[in-house]
Amino acid sequence: MDAPLLSVSRRTRQTAFSNRVKACGVKAYSVYNHMLLPTVFDSLEADYHHLKKQVQIWDVSCQRLIEICGPDSARLIQMLTPRDLTHMASGQCYYTPMVDETGGMLNDPVTLKRAEDRYWICVADSDLLFWVKGLAYGLRLEVDVNEPDVSPLAIQGPKADELVARIFGPSSRDIRFFRYAVLPFEGRDLVIARSGYSKQGGFEIYVDGSDLGEPIWDAFMAAGQDLDVRAGGPNLIERVEARFLSYGNDMTRENTPHECGLGKFCQTQTAIGCVGRDALLRVAVEGPVRQIRSLAIDGDALPPGTQLWQIYGNGKRVGQVSSAVWSPDFETNVAIGMVRMTHWDAGTRVEVETPDGMRSATVQETPFF
Amino acid sequence: MDAPLLSVSRRTRQTAFSNRVKACGVKAYSVYNHMLLPTVFDSLEADYHHLKKQVQIWDVSCQRLIEICGPDSARLIQMLTPRDLTHMASGQCYYTPMVDETGGMLNDPVTLKRAEDRYWICVADSDLLFWVKGLAYGLRLEVDVNEPDVSPLAIQGPKADELVARIFGPSSRDIRFFRYAVLPFEGRDLVIARSGYSKQGGFEIYVDGSDLGEPIWDAFMAAGQDLDVRAGGPNLIERVEARFLSYGNDMTRENTPHECGLGKFCQTQTAIGCVGRDALLRVAVEGPVRQIRSLAIDGDALPPGTQLWQIYGNGKRVGQVSSAVWSPDFETNVAIGMVRMTHWDAGTRVEVETPDGMRSATVQETPFF
Repeated sequence: MDAPLLSVSRRTRQTAFSNRVKACGVKAYSVYNHMLLPTVFDSLEADYHHLKKQVQIWDVSCQRLIEICGPDSARLIQMLTPRDLTHMASGQCYYTPMVDETGGMLNDPVTLKRAEDRYWICVADSDLLFWVKGLAYGLRLEVDVNEPDVSPLAIQGPKADELVARIFGPSSRDIRFFRYAVLPFEGRDLVIARSGYSKQGGFEIYVDGSDLGEPIWDAFMAAGQDLDVRAGGPNLIERVEARFLSYGNDMTRENTPHECGLGKFCQTQTAIGCVGRDALLRVAVEGPVRQIRSLAIDGDALPPGTQLWQIYGNGKRVGQVSSAVWSPDFETNVAIGMVRMTHWDAGTRVEVETPDGMRSATVQETPFF
Repeated sequence: MDAPLLSVSRRTRQTAFSNRVKACGVKAYSVYNHMLLPTVFDSLEADYHHLKKQVQIWDVSCQRLIEICGPDSARLIQMLTPRDLTHMASGQCYYTPMVDETGGMLNDPVTLKRAEDRYWICVADSDLLFWVKGLAYGLRLEVDVNEPDVSPLAIQGPKADELVARIFGPSSRDIRFFRYAVLPFEGRDLVIARSGYSKQGGFEIYVDGSDLGEPIWDAFMAAGQDLDVRAGGPNLIERVEARFLSYGNDMTRENTPHECGLGKFCQTQTAIGCVGRDALLRVAVEGPVRQIRSLAIDGDALPPGTQLWQIYGNGKRVGQVSSAVWSPDFETNVAIGMVRMTHWDAGTRVEVETPDGMRSATVQETPFF
């Protein structure tokens, strides 16, 4: 499918950075959590090469926050995820698969512990807020659950450390992976986490207050001139190479965390009280019968995948490719797919039904790097 | 904002009709419930004139369904809405505002009663499924809550009765407004409701099974050749004229049903057990201090609104326009906005801050018709 036009309305919400994003010449968006997510500036490939060499500023406001406050916050947050949060401390970010009562994925957010009775959940593309509010209401928990006016801004790429240090000072360099510090910008305290949706390293700044959006964007742009800083966004090629999963693309409510390769984030045995525990304990014992894998699809460049492509082995359906795109660096079509255990071993040859016809493909041991 | 490109992926789900929609030359989409919603085929204005004269086929698969089954279904459905469902019968469709515990709108779906223990909720643009599942889990209700493979297809326009009768037989003409009948297509029973998101009349066909999507689309297209049937979609101009509210555009979780002019769908006194009852009983007594109104904005054609425009009266903020577009038939900019009670009387003159500068506007008594 060639890129069609997007009808923009208030419902496809603009962000605190939208004016700047437009001024930087954004070419395409996705819609994510009812909000505009810039996807392409120069071109998918040019943005990709730049991301791997320099530093980019990403408007990821669509990673909306859910704030949980109040005396039952710790109980509620542990209900939401099979990851054991017992030893989570303030200043930490945890990647937290969240599931329904059958163990089906509802979202795969990053949770930040702000205090003993206050958590932020930075969500992927589903209205997780509705699930959290429904649970809290049904269980009569003493919590307040809201979407605060916080807009995540990602600084990604090999020069991200340098750029962030120029704005937040040298102490930002000491922030460890999936930790955050609270540092001032224009007299306001902001959460700066070492995290982000690329393999190139960097930070996510939780811009607390839309009024700060343009000032902080401008500050980064001005400070990074000599670093060739540019506007960017989560890059399809880079994320498929690195096998960063995308909720709604590579996993849905149909899948358990174990199928998604997220079993290591499930301590279902000790995460007492979590929703879906019964179902996931069963899965943890038996293991999944299909799982996420990286694949290399042979032949010329395919158009980026826009829907599931069936995977065949010995003439039978053995899985589905959920994301696929041509990789200039690896000179092959890189893909993410769910593969049945009969065919998931590294090196297994399978066939993929693409819009360009049947193609051979190879299951990979690891992501591409 | 000129229309940018939309990056399509599996996450922006295609529908059972997408191949046909593309073959009909779709030019633009919105993303609605994580799914493609076709918005423009010829042009916004050409589609509008055609809709008012002929008949169109709309892919509104994005109006996803929630199916609630099981012994506690009736209890759960009454919890979800302040509308009194006591006398609802099978075969009826109810427009049902749904709110959270504070009375804030979560969605404004149409609910269909399929049986005493089975309901369909046909939802606007929010993951209401998550709220329903959260409540059901928290309250340990004996229900099954799912998104079935049902794709609504709307047949809208003055010739809709004729076209639908050609496919489903003359009995379809007897279906009353907001009632449905179950009629066969290719040997399969489908729900046909007299409803739809336009003022031009018509039906919504609940296509039960994606495999039926292309056959039924083709049947309507073939049967309607002499009626000048075309592919279409919810039309921004027609819906703003008629003041069809759009969740996410004209109302959000910030608003009560009463602010949205939906008080007549709230029998909070008798809808015992509904979530938000305490808050809405209070609102029902005092009345809202702001409410949805139609407005006519003076001057030349404005670009369609893509974000809130402030409304001023006597130099103070008195509301916000949420949807606005030029109407060829009324030869003015038609708009929907939330206006404070000090300025909501018909005929009141206000100022609206548009992208083209400050414009005078007049509050209307009724929608445009």
